[in-house]
Amino acid sequence: MATAANSVPYPTLISVDPFLPADQQKGIHNRWHPDIPAFATVKPGETFKIECVDWTGAQIGNNDTSDDVRDVDLSKVHNLSGPIAVEGAEPGDCLVVDILDVQPFEKMPWGYTGIFELENGGGLFAREFKSRAAKAIWDLKGIYATSRHIPGVRFAGVTHPGLIGTAPSPELLATWNKREQELIDAHPNAVPAVALPPEPKGAYVGQELEDSVREKIYKEGARTIPGREHGGNCDIKNLSRGSRCYFPVFVKGANLSVGDLHFSQGDGEMSFCGAIEMAGIITFSTSIIKGGVEKFALKQPIFLPSPVDPMYSQKLVFEGLGVDIHGDGKQYNMDASVAYKQAALNAIAYLMKIGYTREQSYLLLSAAPVESHVGAIVDSPNACVTLGIPTGIFEHDILPNPDGFAKKDFGQCAIRSDGLV
Amino acid sequence: MATAANSVPYPTLISVDPFLPADQQKGIHNRWHPDIPAFATVKPGETFKIECVDWTGAQIGNNDTSDDVRDVDLSKVHNLSGPIAVEGAEPGDCLVVDILDVQPFEKMPWGYTGIFELENGGGLFAREFKSRAAKAIWDLKGIYATSRHIPGVRFAGVTHPGLIGTAPSPELLATWNKREQELIDAHPNAVPAVALPPEPKGAYVGQELEDSVREKIYKEGARTIPGREHGGNCDIKNLSRGSRCYFPVFVKGANLSVGDLHFSQGDGEMSFCGAIEMAGIITFSTSIIKGGVEKFALKQPIFLPSPVDPMYSQKLVFEGLGVDIHGDGKQYNMDASVAYKQAALNAIAYLMKIGYTREQSYLLLSAAPVESHVGAIVDSPNACVTLGIPTGIFEHDILPNPDGFAKKDFGQCAIRSDGLV
Amino acid sequence: MATAANSVPYPTLISVDPFLPADQQKGIHNRWHPDIPAFATVKPGETFKIECVDWTGAQIGNNDTSDDVRDVDLSKVHNLSGPIAVEGAEPGDCLVVDILDVQPFEKMPWGYTGIFELENGGGLFAREFKSRAAKAIWDLKGIYATSRHIPGVRFAGVTHPGLIGTAPSPELLATWNKREQELIDAHPNAVPAVALPPEPKGAYVGQELEDSVREKIYKEGARTIPGREHGGNCDIKNLSRGSRCYFPVFVKGANLSVGDLHFSQGDGEMSFCGAIEMAGIITFSTSIIKGGVEKFALKQPIFLPSPVDPMYSQKLVFEGLGVDIHGDGKQYNMDASVAYKQAALNAIAYLMKIGYTREQSYLLLSAAPVESHVGAIVDSPNACVTLGIPTGIFEHDILPNPDGFAKKDFGQCAIRSDGLV
Amino acid sequence: MATAANSVPYPTLISVDPFLPADQQKGIHNRWHPDIPAFATVKPGETFKIECVDWTGAQIGNNDTSDDVRDVDLSKVHNLSGPIAVEGAEPGDCLVVDILDVQPFEKMPWGYTGIFELENGGGLFAREFKSRAAKAIWDLKGIYATSRHIPGVRFAGVTHPGLIGTAPSPELLATWNKREQELIDAHPNAVPAVALPPEPKGAYVGQELEDSVREKIYKEGARTIPGREHGGNCDIKNLSRGSRCYFPVFVKGANLSVGDLHFSQGDGEMSFCGAIEMAGIITFSTSIIKGGVEKFALKQPIFLPSPVDPMYSQKLVFEGLGVDIHGDGKQYNMDASVAYKQAALNAIAYLMKIGYTREQSYLLLSAAPVESHVGAIVDSPNACVTLGIPTGIFEHDILPNPDGFAKKDFGQCAIRSDGLV
Repeated sequence: MATAANSVPYPTLISVDPFLPADQQKGIHNRWHPDIPAFATVKPGETFKIECVDWTGAQIGNNDTSDDVRDVDLSKVHNLSGPIAVEGAEPGDCLVVDILDVQPFEKMPWGYTGIFELENGGGLFAREFKSRAAKAIWDLKGIYATSRHIPGVRFAGVTHPGLIGTAPSPELLATWNKREQELIDAHPNAVPAVALPPEPKGAYVGQELEDSVREKIYKEGARTIPGREHGGNCDIKNLSRGSRCYFPVFVKGANLSVGDLHFSQGDGEMSFCGAIEMAGIITFSTSIIKGGVEKFALKQPIFLPSPVDPMYSQKLVFEGLGVDIHGDGKQYNMDASVAYKQAALNAIAYLMKIGYTREQSYLLLSAAPVESHVGAIVDSPNACVTLGIPTGIFEHDILPNPDGFAKKDFGQCAIRSDGLV
Repeated sequence: MATAANSVPYPTLISVDPFLPADQQKGIHNRWHPDIPAFATVKPGETFKIECVDWTGAQIGNNDTSDDVRDVDLSKVHNLSGPIAVEGAEPGDCLVVDILDVQPFEKMPWGYTGIFELENGGGLFAREFKSRAAKAIWDLKGIYATSRHIPGVRFAGVTHPGLIGTAPSPELLATWNKREQELIDAHPNAVPAVALPPEPKGAYVGQELEDSVREKIYKEGARTIPGREHGGNCDIKNLSRGSRCYFPVFVKGANLSVGDLHFSQGDGEMSFCGAIEMAGIITFSTSIIKGGVEKFALKQPIFLPSPVDPMYSQKLVFEGLGVDIHGDGKQYNMDASVAYKQAALNAIAYLMKIGYTREQSYLLLSAAPVESHVGAIVDSPNACVTLGIPTGIFEHDILPNPDGFAKKDFGQCAIRSDGLV
Repeated sequence: MATAANSVPYPTLISVDPFLPADQQKGIHNRWHPDIPAFATVKPGETFKIECVDWTGAQIGNNDTSDDVRDVDLSKVHNLSGPIAVEGAEPGDCLVVDILDVQPFEKMPWGYTGIFELENGGGLFAREFKSRAAKAIWDLKGIYATSRHIPGVRFAGVTHPGLIGTAPSPELLATWNKREQELIDAHPNAVPAVALPPEPKGAYVGQELEDSVREKIYKEGARTIPGREHGGNCDIKNLSRGSRCYFPVFVKGANLSVGDLHFSQGDGEMSFCGAIEMAGIITFSTSIIKGGVEKFALKQPIFLPSPVDPMYSQKLVFEGLGVDIHGDGKQYNMDASVAYKQAALNAIAYLMKIGYTREQSYLLLSAAPVESHVGAIVDSPNACVTLGIPTGIFEHDILPNPDGFAKKDFGQCAIRSDGLV
Repeated sequence: MATAANSVPYPTLISVDPFLPADQQKGIHNRWHPDIPAFATVKPGETFKIECVDWTGAQIGNNDTSDDVRDVDLSKVHNLSGPIAVEGAEPGDCLVVDILDVQPFEKMPWGYTGIFELENGGGLFAREFKSRAAKAIWDLKGIYATSRHIPGVRFAGVTHPGLIGTAPSPELLATWNKREQELIDAHPNAVPAVALPPEPKGAYVGQELEDSVREKIYKEGARTIPGREHGGNCDIKNLSRGSRCYFPVFVKGANLSVGDLHFSQGDGEMSFCGAIEMAGIITFSTSIIKGGVEKFALKQPIFLPSPVDPMYSQKLVFEGLGVDIHGDGKQYNMDASVAYKQAALNAIAYLMKIGYTREQSYLLLSAAPVESHVGAIVDSPNACVTLGIPTGIFEHDILPNPDGFAKKDFGQCAIRSDGLV
C-alpha cells in the first residue's frame, strides 16, 4: 500500500541494552575527557536517536527493598551515551541541540527514585535525616507515573535528560579538576564528600582505545556529578522534550554526550537520586552557529524550554528563608541553599500531617513536578526561596482546611531489608 | 435608578497620601514590634482596603537623574500600613489572607526601579559592579509597564505586596534580634552590611503612643529588610493579587501589616530596589483557622498563588552554577546564591550583546517577570539555578540567531547628575 | 516630597454616573450611525480613560428579585460611551486599540447576570425553558466574583468590554439594515425576534445635535445587539484587559465607541444577559496603521488576547453534537449552534445532579470563564462543539466519582416577586 | 543485572501493520454495530496498547502529488481497532477511559493532511473553493511536526484519537440510521452528500463471523464519519494523551473502538482530512462507574483534558460572524457554523498576504493547534466565533506591522499530477 514507501525511521546511533551492565556496552562512557573519541558523527540537520541505560547502569531493580540503593557503586556513574560529533563544529561555535523526544524503553516501563545512604551518595538532607537507603518504584504509564510505594498521587512527566553536555577542552578539564581539588582539600573529612576527584576505579569508555589513551582518560577524566560550563549534570527539569539548547563548543566536533534520563523531577531534585530515573531513548537534531560563544556571550548553556509542559495551575507554595529554623536556628548570610532547604522541610512537615512518611515525602518532592523559585536574594541577611507543590497530582484534597487533616495511612516506601530507616 | 441602591464601596481602613512623607502620616510604621497597637480591627470575612505609600515614603521622584536614589535615607524604610487586627485571632492560629487586588493610585500612575549605591543599600552585584545609583521610571498603563529609561520592552505586571506579615511575639522578636546581631558581629566591617540592628533613628509609628512604649518599640523593633518566620519582606512576586496566604499568628489579633507594593518584579529582585516600586491600594479579606500552626506544621507562611498570572510561555533560560566564572573562578560548595548570580550575569552579558547597557540590563531583569528556578541542589559541588527571560516582553526578537545581533542603541537609564556610573 | 512632581493621571474623556439613567448623560449613545459626531478626539499614542454605565443604563438593581429584569426596556440598549475620534484615521486604515485596563467603579462593586423573559430579550434557551426572568447579583472583590445567588463558586474575572467598535460608513450601515430587514421579513412572527430594525423610540445620542441630524440617526441607526464588520457587540471574553485589537476604519477619525463592560463571561454568554454586567472604566491607547485594511485583508477585527488570563488548568468538558438529543431528537445538518446548545444542556443537567437549580446552572455557565471550542465542523452531518467548566471555580469537588453526588441544596437565584420560574 | 527482573511491557491487544490494507488485518472494523464481537477483553485497571492503521487504511502515501487523495475510497473508512470489551461493564454504566499515550509507529514517522475533492469527501470550503485534491506531508520529529509542503512552521502536536467510542445498542443504532436517512431524504442531491447511509460495499470486520451476522452488520452498520452519542468521530483535539474520558455504555462489555489517530489538529479540522493523520499506538486503561449514566446525566461523553498541552500563549485571533461576508453577504440567523467559516476565511486571507497559497493556508489551519471559541451565541442575529492562530508556530513574525508584509514565496503544497488546483 501507499504508506510503506518512504517510511524511513530515524537512525539509532547508539544502541544499548538497559538490562546489561553499562561497562559491557559500546558507546557508553562515565568520565568527561577531551580524548574520548566520537563514537558516531552526524551532519547538522539530521534527526537521530540515542539509547541510554539508566544512570547507574542497571544496578537498581524493580522490587520492594532498597538494598540495591544502599549498595550502589557510585564509581560507575553516570553512564553516558556518546560522544556524538557534529560535522563542522569547532571551538567557539554554538551547538544548537533540539531535544525532540525522550521516551522510556517499551520493555522497561518503570523507573525509580532513591534516597541514598549518608555514607554512599547522600542527598540534600543526608545529614539532617541520617539517611538510610529508601526507594520508590514508579510505573510509567504513557505520560503518567504512579508508584505503589507512594499511593495517592499520579502526575504527568516532564521527561528530560538529567545530563547532557559537550566535551571539555584540555584546558577546561584542567580548570575543573584544579578548582574541585581545592574544595576537596578544604573539606578533607566531609561526609558526604564535597566533591569527587578523578578516579580510575570504575572508569569506563566503551570504545576501542590505545592503552595509553584509556589510561590518561581514566586518570584525568572529570567525574560526572556536578554540572559545569559545558552543561553536564545540571538536572534541570525544564530542559525537557521539545527544548532547544545552545551549548558552547570546546573541541572539534563538539562531542555531545547524554544520559541520566529522567521521566520526571522536581526543582532541586532534593534526594540526589531524586528524579524518576529511567533508561530510554532520546531523539535529537542539531545545528551550528559559527562563533556563537562570542555572539551570545555564551559562558554556559542557554535554552528555550519546551512548549509542552504539564499544566498544574494550582500550587501550594512553601516559603523558606536563610535561617535554619528546622535545625539550630542559625542565621545564614544570604544563603539560597539554606532557604531552599527550609522550604523543603516545611513542605515535608506538611505532607507528614496528611499521612505520608518522611521518606515518602522526601521522595515525592524530589520526583514530582515541584516548582522552586528564588523569591528574593537581596533582602539581607535572608534569601527567600519558595517550593510549590502542584495540588492536581494528588487524588485527594491537600489544601489547608479548617478541620485539619484526618491523617491517612499511605504505608511506606521501599526500605532496607534489615528494616533500618 | 436601580443601580444606586445597595452600592456600597469596601471601606478603606488606612488612608495615606503618596505625595507626603511617610512619617507625617497615620497608620504607618517602619519597624516590627509586638507592642505596636492595632491601628484598625476587622472581623473575619470582611472585605477592606489599605492604602500604602511607596516603600521609601515618597523619597524617589519621577525624573531623569538618580540623585534621589543615591541619597535615600534607608533608616526610614519600609513604610508599612497597619497593623490590622483580626477579631478572634490568637497565637497558634493560622490567619488566612486573601489578597483580592493590588492597584497603583490613579493619581500616581508610575513606579521606579533603582540600583542603590554600594555604600547605601547595595544590591546583588553592588560589589561586582561597584554600584553607583541608577534608576528607571516606569509608566503604569493599565496592566502594562513601559519605561522611557529602558526602551523596547512592555510587560504585564505581577502586582503584589513585597512585604506582608503578622506581628512577632516578644520571644520571636528577641530571637530575630539575637541571631542577626550574631551575624553582624561575625562580619563587623562588611559593605554593604550583612544585616541591620534595631535603630531608633528614623524609626516611626504613626499612632498616639505613650513615650515609654514608643521608646521601647524604636529601641527594640526589628528592621524590615529581611523576610522572617511571620512573612515580612519576602519579595515573592507570585504572592500577587488573587493569592490566598496562610500566616502563623504570634500575637492576639494577628496584627497584619503590609507595604512595599510592587507593580512587577523578577524572581530574585536582584538590584535590591529591583521591583517596580509603587504606592497603591491593596484589597483584603481574612479568616482564621484555629490551631492552624499545629494543623499545618506552619513555621512560615504558605500560600496559593493567584490564578491570574502573565502567560509568557516562551522563555530564554540562562544556567548558573556555584562557580564564580564571571569573577575569580572560585569553586563554591553547593551554593545556590552563587549559582543565581552566575545565571544573572550570563543574562546581563547576553542583553548587553543586544545593546542594553549593564545598568539597563540589571534593572530590567530585576523588574520584569523573570523566572528563576532552583534546577538542582544535590550535584556536589555545584548547585544549578536557572533564570528565564520571557521573550514576549520585548518588542524585538531576542532569540539567538545565526548572524548574531546588530547591536542597537537603547540609550541609558537615569544616572547620577554627576555622570558617575 | 519627590513623588508629587510629574504624577499626572491619565485623562478621563467621558465621565458618567452609573447611578443615573443613561439618557440623561453626555457622551453616551445607543445606536450605530456615521453621523454621530465624535464626542472627544485623541492623538495616536495617548493613554486615556472612558467611563461607561452598565449596558441597560442603570435599570437593574442589587436586590433579590428579578422584576427589574422582567421589565427591562430593551429599546434603550446598549448604552455606549463615545465616539472617540483618533486624529489621522481614515477609511481603509487599521485602528490599533490597546485595551489597557477595565475596572468596575469603586463605588459600585457589584454586577449582575440575567435570564430574560422569553418575550423580552430571550436567550439561548428562552424557548426550551420558556424563560421567566431570573438574576444573580455578583460581588466584585478585587479580581474575584462571588454571588449570594449561586453559592459555592468563586472565580477570577476575564474583564472585558462586551461591545467595542468603530463607526460604520453610510454604505456599511445601509448594508446592515438591508440584510437584517430581509431576515426579519423571513421570520415575521418569531419570538424572540430574529433581529431588531432601526427604532426611534428609546434612541439616544448624548450630544447637542441639529434636529434633522438627530432624527436621521434615530430613524436609521443600527441596533446594537449583534456584532458586525466593525466589531460591535461581539461579546468575546478574551478581548480582555491587556488585549491589542485591530479594527477596520470606515469613517474619518474611526469614531470608536465602547460599552457593555463585563467583569466575566463564559464562551457563548448563553443566557443573553449572561456576562457579569457592570458599569466601569476602560483605559485605552491607540495607533493607526495606514492602509491596514488592504495590508491585512481586514474585513473584520482581529486581535491579540491579553497575556493575563485566569489559569484554571483543569476543566470538565461536555460534548455536544448537531442533533437535538435534549429535545425532539432532530438531526441537523452541520449546525454548530445546535451542537453548542447540546453541550450546554449536558452541562446544565450535570450541575443539576450536584444540586444547582436549572436557573443557577444557566446563569453560572453564562458568567463563569467557561471555554467553548468548535471541536470539528466537517464530520457530516454532525458538528461537534465542546464546553469546558473550570473545576477550580468551585469550592467543592465536581468531578465524576464512583458514588455519584450527594445532591446539595444551593438555594435558588433571584426570581420574580410573583414566584414564577 | 537488577533492571531486567519485573520489566514487563504492557500488552498489545491489537497489532496491525500500517503498511498493509486495513481489510486484510485482524481486529479492525469500519462500521458501528452492536453485533461486532469484542476482539479482546480487559479487566478494569489494566494498562494495554492498541495499534491502529491510519484512518484510510494505508491509502495515502509520503510523496509529492495528491492523486492518492483524489482517488481515495471513502467506503472503506474509518478503519477502527476494536472492539475491546471491559469486564463488568453493562448498559447504563459509565466507562472511564484513560488515554495514557498516543504515538506514531517508529517505522512510519510521518503523517498527512488532505484537501479532498468536492465530489469525493469535500471539506468545509469544498464548494467555496471548488476543491481539488491537495496534500501536505508532515515529518513527525519527536513532539514536533514540520512539512516540506508548508515551509516556515514547526509545532508541537496535540496527539489524540480522532475517533473513539463505545458500541451502540440496537435501539441507538436504529435511531442513528433513521434520523440520518431523514436528513439525506431532505437533501437528495447535495454535493458533498449531507450524510452517508449504511453501505455494504467496503464494509469490513476483521474477525471470524457467521455469514448472516456479517451480512447484518454490513447492511445496518452506521457509517463512521459523524460523532454521535457514544463518542465516535468527534475529532476533538483536546481529547489528547493524558485525557480521562467518561463514556456511556450501551452494550454489555462497553465494546470500545478507536482509530483515526491524529498527531495534531486545529479546532474545527476544517479541511475534513484536516488533522495530521497517522497510524500509531494508543495506550489505555479503563474503569467502570456503575450506573454512571444516571449519576452524571450522561447523554454523551464528557472528559478531562490532558494536563499536557502545547503552550503557545500568544495567538492572533480572527473574528467571524453569521453573515457570509466572503460570499454573497447573506444574513444568517444565529448560525455558528457560518461564523466559524468567516473567521476561517479571514484567517486564510491573512495568511495569503504573508505568502502562503490558499491551499497551504487551508491545510495549515486544519492541522496546527488553532483554537476556535464560540464567542457569543446570543446576539441575534449574529453568532460570533473566533479562530486563534498561535504565533509561536511560525519561524517568522506574522503579527500585523505598520509596513504590511513583504510577501514571501513558500512554494505550494502537493497537488494533483495534472496540475489542477
